[in-house]
Amino acid sequence: MDKYTKQSETSYALGTTLTIELLSRKKEVATRIYINPKQKRDETYNKLISLARSAGIPVIENNQKIFSALSGKDNVMAIGEFKKFDNTLPKDKNHLVLVNPSNMGNLGTVIRSGAAFEIGGLAIIRPAADAFDPKCVRSSMGAIFSLPFHYYDSFEEYEKEFPAHKIHPFMLQAKKELSSVQKEEPYSLVFGNEATGLPKEFLEKGEPVIIAQSSLIDSLNLDNAVSIGLYTFKNK
Amino acid sequence: MDKYTKQSETSYALGTTLTIELLSRKKEVATRIYINPKQKRDETYNKLISLARSAGIPVIENNQKIFSALSGKDNVMAIGEFKKFDNTLPKDKNHLVLVNPSNMGNLGTVIRSGAAFEIGGLAIIRPAADAFDPKCVRSSMGAIFSLPFHYYDSFEEYEKEFPAHKIHPFMLQAKKELSSVQKEEPYSLVFGNEATGLPKEFLEKGEPVIIAQSSLIDSLNLDNAVSIGLYTFKNK
Repeated sequence: MDKYTKQSETSYALGTTLTIELLSRKKEVATRIYINPKQKRDETYNKLISLARSAGIPVIENNQKIFSALSGKDNVMAIGEFKKFDNTLPKDKNHLVLVNPSNMGNLGTVIRSGAAFEIGGLAIIRPAADAFDPKCVRSSMGAIFSLPFHYYDSFEEYEKEFPAHKIHPFMLQAKKELSSVQKEEPYSLVFGNEATGLPKEFLEKGEPVIIAQSSLIDSLNLDNAVSIGLYTFKNK
Repeated sequence: MDKYTKQSETSYALGTTLTIELLSRKKEVATRIYINPKQKRDETYNKLISLARSAGIPVIENNQKIFSALSGKDNVMAIGEFKKFDNTLPKDKNHLVLVNPSNMGNLGTVIRSGAAFEIGGLAIIRPAADAFDPKCVRSSMGAIFSLPFHYYDSFEEYEKEFPAHKIHPFMLQAKKELSSVQKEEPYSLVFGNEATGLPKEFLEKGEPVIIAQSSLIDSLNLDNAVSIGLYTFKNK
């Protein structure tokens, strides 16, 4: 059992809650469940065992070592091993597009908010953080098993696949404020890198949008901006 | 020079950008500026020196040790030492109230969003994370020097001081959805702890509000929920 790397074919849901999410939402990719010998024989244990059994996933209960090897912590009580998967984004639904997100924690939180507001799919433009990294799986709180996402090598590749989507790049240089934008579905809400935002050429794409904010700060945190965008568009 | 603790009377802005924020927004609490001997004599350096001089703050340029001692990293090029301060919240402006926030990173990000949407002040109900911890100062991106905040021992203490504020507890058990709430100023948007939310008795206070979200997730990340609340209320 090796430490996770970007090249690994499998990744891990670290923790009982995450493992339950894996087995409930995406059991077809689960390959093995490890239960920490220290885990009490309680309701959570029974739930894990019964979910794994009904999905036909092997359960390993006598491998203490893997817990320190994979999590670096002793308090992780279950690990769900899964094969990395790929999704197709639905053509007729709204999308979220992240261009070059670099922080795994942020990416996970964005996936969580995407699932919260039922966006149809998430496109991630490379270079980008690895959504399958156990840290991202964890910060998504398992939403990674619900929200379809797909990596693209360039924004152009994404655009070509979804020509009907109305593009809204979120940029501090945009003129149109979020609350006054008219909603036309299907739409794509596009956000740039945490530190640098979207490159200027996105001002020429679709209808750029700004979230009005005071001059007291440079910019909003990426996942905060995304959450505001998703929620506001959903409720238009 | 000791490591920061909750009991310290001074805290630190770690980094050139944060130190510039300290000197620009709240110079009256700055006590000393350290510049890393490795910092280049560039524009940033000149800006730091001129801000410190015009505010009459001593600049120490030959103390390499403090950088590893306080930041644990070598790439911090400036440290702004400041005396912890206390603010009064304005009676006639809208507030954000955090009940028992436990995560310093989240608290900092919330302060950043609070400044972004120009909320009048932030009340923090104890027990709570320490807003002056250098980690929180950092995750606020310096917004801690702009947004007035004050700690209270209980929500009742806060309520008593601001009887005119319309209270909106944000709770998953609330019936009224955020987008259909009517805005009456001054208002207080109240959010609970990251893991547990607000206690049930808040359902009896003012007009509770829910941010509608799918059943795919347990709840939104605290700072994401706060950002949505602040933005939506501001634009009502």
